[in-house]
Amino acid sequence: MILGMEDFEAYAQSFVDGLMDGDVKNVVICPGSRSTPISIAFARRAGEVRQWVLYDERSAAFFALGMAKSSSSPVAVVCTSGTAAANLFPAVAEARLGRVPIIAVTADRPPESRDFGGAQTIDQVRLFGSHAKWSQDMPVASGADSSIRYARLVGARASHAAASTPQGPVQVNFSFREPLISEKPSVEGWEGRSRGGVAVVGSKSIADEGELRRVAAELSTLPRGIIVAGPGDYGGTLRDGLSTLSERMGWPILADALSNLRQDGALRSGLVRCYEPLVRSEGFRAKRPDCVVRLGGVPTSKELNSFCQGVRTVLLDDGEGWRDPDFWASTMVFGDLAHSVSCLSDALERAPAPDPTWLGTWLQADEEAQARMDALMDKMGEPFEGKLFHTLSKNLSPSSPLTVVVGSSMPVRDLDYFFPGGSKNIRLVANRGANGIDGVVSTAMGVSASEGDVLLVLGDVSFYHDMNGLLASKLYQLNATVIVVNNRGGGIFSFLAQHSLPKELFEQLFGEAHDLDFSAVRLLYGGEFSRVADWGSFDGALASSTKGKGLRVIEFVAPERERNLELHKEAFQKLSSPSTKGEVRR
Amino acid sequence: MILGMEDFEAYAQSFVDGLMDGDVKNVVICPGSRSTPISIAFARRAGEVRQWVLYDERSAAFFALGMAKSSSSPVAVVCTSGTAAANLFPAVAEARLGRVPIIAVTADRPPESRDFGGAQTIDQVRLFGSHAKWSQDMPVASGADSSIRYARLVGARASHAAASTPQGPVQVNFSFREPLISEKPSVEGWEGRSRGGVAVVGSKSIADEGELRRVAAELSTLPRGIIVAGPGDYGGTLRDGLSTLSERMGWPILADALSNLRQDGALRSGLVRCYEPLVRSEGFRAKRPDCVVRLGGVPTSKELNSFCQGVRTVLLDDGEGWRDPDFWASTMVFGDLAHSVSCLSDALERAPAPDPTWLGTWLQADEEAQARMDALMDKMGEPFEGKLFHTLSKNLSPSSPLTVVVGSSMPVRDLDYFFPGGSKNIRLVANRGANGIDGVVSTAMGVSASEGDVLLVLGDVSFYHDMNGLLASKLYQLNATVIVVNNRGGGIFSFLAQHSLPKELFEQLFGEAHDLDFSAVRLLYGGEFSRVADWGSFDGALASSTKGKGLRVIEFVAPERERNLELHKEAFQKLSSPSTKGEVRR
Repeated sequence: MILGMEDFEAYAQSFVDGLMDGDVKNVVICPGSRSTPISIAFARRAGEVRQWVLYDERSAAFFALGMAKSSSSPVAVVCTSGTAAANLFPAVAEARLGRVPIIAVTADRPPESRDFGGAQTIDQVRLFGSHAKWSQDMPVASGADSSIRYARLVGARASHAAASTPQGPVQVNFSFREPLISEKPSVEGWEGRSRGGVAVVGSKSIADEGELRRVAAELSTLPRGIIVAGPGDYGGTLRDGLSTLSERMGWPILADALSNLRQDGALRSGLVRCYEPLVRSEGFRAKRPDCVVRLGGVPTSKELNSFCQGVRTVLLDDGEGWRDPDFWASTMVFGDLAHSVSCLSDALERAPAPDPTWLGTWLQADEEAQARMDALMDKMGEPFEGKLFHTLSKNLSPSSPLTVVVGSSMPVRDLDYFFPGGSKNIRLVANRGANGIDGVVSTAMGVSASEGDVLLVLGDVSFYHDMNGLLASKLYQLNATVIVVNNRGGGIFSFLAQHSLPKELFEQLFGEAHDLDFSAVRLLYGGEFSRVADWGSFDGALASSTKGKGLRVIEFVAPERERNLELHKEAFQKLSSPSTKGEVRR
Repeated sequence: MILGMEDFEAYAQSFVDGLMDGDVKNVVICPGSRSTPISIAFARRAGEVRQWVLYDERSAAFFALGMAKSSSSPVAVVCTSGTAAANLFPAVAEARLGRVPIIAVTADRPPESRDFGGAQTIDQVRLFGSHAKWSQDMPVASGADSSIRYARLVGARASHAAASTPQGPVQVNFSFREPLISEKPSVEGWEGRSRGGVAVVGSKSIADEGELRRVAAELSTLPRGIIVAGPGDYGGTLRDGLSTLSERMGWPILADALSNLRQDGALRSGLVRCYEPLVRSEGFRAKRPDCVVRLGGVPTSKELNSFCQGVRTVLLDDGEGWRDPDFWASTMVFGDLAHSVSCLSDALERAPAPDPTWLGTWLQADEEAQARMDALMDKMGEPFEGKLFHTLSKNLSPSSPLTVVVGSSMPVRDLDYFFPGGSKNIRLVANRGANGIDGVVSTAMGVSASEGDVLLVLGDVSFYHDMNGLLASKLYQLNATVIVVNNRGGGIFSFLAQHSLPKELFEQLFGEAHDLDFSAVRLLYGGEFSRVADWGSFDGALASSTKGKGLRVIEFVAPERERNLELHKEAFQKLSSPSTKGEVRR
């Protein structure tokens, strides 16, 4: 059907052309035999789709996730049959909950090989179960016109399914019989010859405007509310809408660090950055809000979640999800966020003026909390993990946009507490779908592949987990500064009830001591490595790194885990207990 | 119900006690918060169950698989909720097809957290789909007598399900609400206090004896058959039965390297070790057998599979599987292998004498092929990958039993071709369920944990894939010699049709060049490291290693991939073309 190609080649090519109809511009290829027709089909369009070849499928899938997260465009990841495909699972699970458009193209043995003991043959049909948004098990190639056309449309559908709101992972399982390569494979000259694709005009859901007016009317009776902006991407229209809503309601906007609304200029008004010490303070806890309007993902701060517990909550979601683990919601509003927020604002235009003091109280308390934090951090001589994020907030001002990827567990919590904002060029990103510590290095490398640079901050256990991800930086000369916060183990467990266990048992089950000399990564993956244990060295290493290229690993030697716990407790306590002067007025 | 314990503690303890009723003696624990009740329940019985704490769940699961493979006893692996659990998937898939008893205990958030946006909460119900033999989603703990008893029985059932023939992986998904630890956790003094378990008397399937007699009668009319012993565990009774069958039928036993029947003394008679050059030879290909009796897994040798194509085949399987990817089977016999083989032999006792020359032809040709191989290998000066296994065959004679784990892809194929047998103390093992290159280091470390030592031979890409697995050797002072056959990339692709691609494209998609300096592993994981590029150095390093303790990595610098291909082709050609003197007589 396609001139000069064998049936299976045309079939694979048509699928890949379909992915590209759907705007796939990057593919991560894991070498394998069974996937050859797909890999070669991508190679035929090398001028239009960038190929990244990586050898550990787990890392490769997270790399694709990083690229897709960065660009909000679908990224394909191709692997061979067998456990190779099973290795994609962690990233697929994260992509589902984190709403990231990746397309897992899993090559498979033909149907007659299934469950007949063939090599590298596992049951790959709906391999990722409920974790894939959409899954298609492709029949073996046929050269019939209808089959070729079918493959093209599946490619386009896969892209569309991954990219439509809420974005997420899809799987296309591709059976191939041998031969997997034709006798005279032609890989040149396909560019521009692809014809006959399908264009997909997507849709977005918007909430019912009449219902939204009723919600607004209800809100207007509640003078003391808060707007909580959880992790997520907030476009310009939405940001403006939030500020307008804040102004009209007289409600503060409590912005999660991962909302990226704390950065300079992101919001016109109403921003409260440093809410965590406030919601921990007795003053604020005594007088909780009447209402919460929440949007984006679940807030990083447990304290904020506990502060809002039991308060009437309007939860806005642009997907199909129900991201409400603490069961706050009294109203669920589904639909495009910018639309919902703007409708609420519009309906409130002529509403009575809200409590005129409420917003001011929050803004002033926030300012004071920030000042206290600045003062405390300035005095802090030890390499406290929280201060790392405060330092980045104050001192990191890249001349062009820079994404900062933050690891799960301690780093993202410290970020949320100690990063009160900063340069508008900074964009903070974390894997907050399933919050795993896995795949973080690869996620960051994917971001760098997409954007040209990245700054990654993660813990030592998380770094160990995905050291393999560093290979991408070596193979593709990716630029990345990686700050490994090394407290020699699983620091977070010291903050949990498990810490009450007898010390020896605690260390055995939760310590995660490893004693790894991370300088070895220089030998394996090249680049620069430095180990710093004080602020002077850290500032120097960071400054030098931000001017550098390639891989630059900075091991930040944090205090022992016990000391880390003490320092956190001390900071929490000091920052949540305002001096008399700064006491919350209300 | 259990004195002094909270409900959730008693529930978890009862489950763990149930696992131990089912003979679980080892558990691999991945640190995590949600799994705390399970981890602590294991800690309470620390004197009776060995705990291994590892931090990368993917590696941890393969480590459990290695232990379970080594001991044929179920090994549990415990992890926290979220992507942590998804990381177990590759090992679970391998365990299913490789028939290895592992018990994945995945901690989960409580049911009310599912699909409500909770942190580290993914859909874990039947997480591994068809890949787990059995899966149970446990309700949240209750202190009712019946619940405690239920948990106990689930533990016992999980062990039984994993260990019963065919062995395989099971999942128990364990929801816990907070608190995850009681205020005064008691972890001492549980040993010996566990009461009231269930004993499971297992069964094995045996084939119908009347049917077996009919099969034997049919076989006795076919004088020129072969017995193919694929990968698997062959106990003493089965080994004797095979020799008896061979003697009565006058058929040779073609033993896969992974059958471990090639080693000295494993079979009383009938053994053909070096069949691969024979089945490639024109002499043998011209006169194929009348019949094949095959048992164990699918043979490693593609050439043998092709040699048997279209021949009447009796396939014996002790599980429920249908391991017949080339569709040879004309008779499937399910049931215990020793029983089936012995019934066939018994029925043949008074059968007419078989073709008296057939067996002799094979045995002599095998002897000649071995002599040719010895001569060719002796002359081979280059560090040829195939010769590595020949060298191990000739020179490795450990004074006590030693398991040799062999990586997928090239190593296992080279092993099958170039390892004609050797010391009876050697046991060869590979992950031949799904044949992945992933998890191989961890599998070997699990074997070492079980047996006290291991020798691992694997390729460089496979080594890269699971370098994290080396952490186990460091944390637990495991003894292991790791031979990394480094041909700087994916050597196997040079043997496939993909090799016909333009060189640059081939290298990009299939080369897997990485340029990793593996000496870095010494810095990370300790132990010894040596790099050898000639036989003298290799012999020295191996000799020194076999006397050593701890981790000993030997990087075997193999010829470039192109040269590797040439050397293989040359060996295949020379060994399959007997001199006039050694020509096959028939």
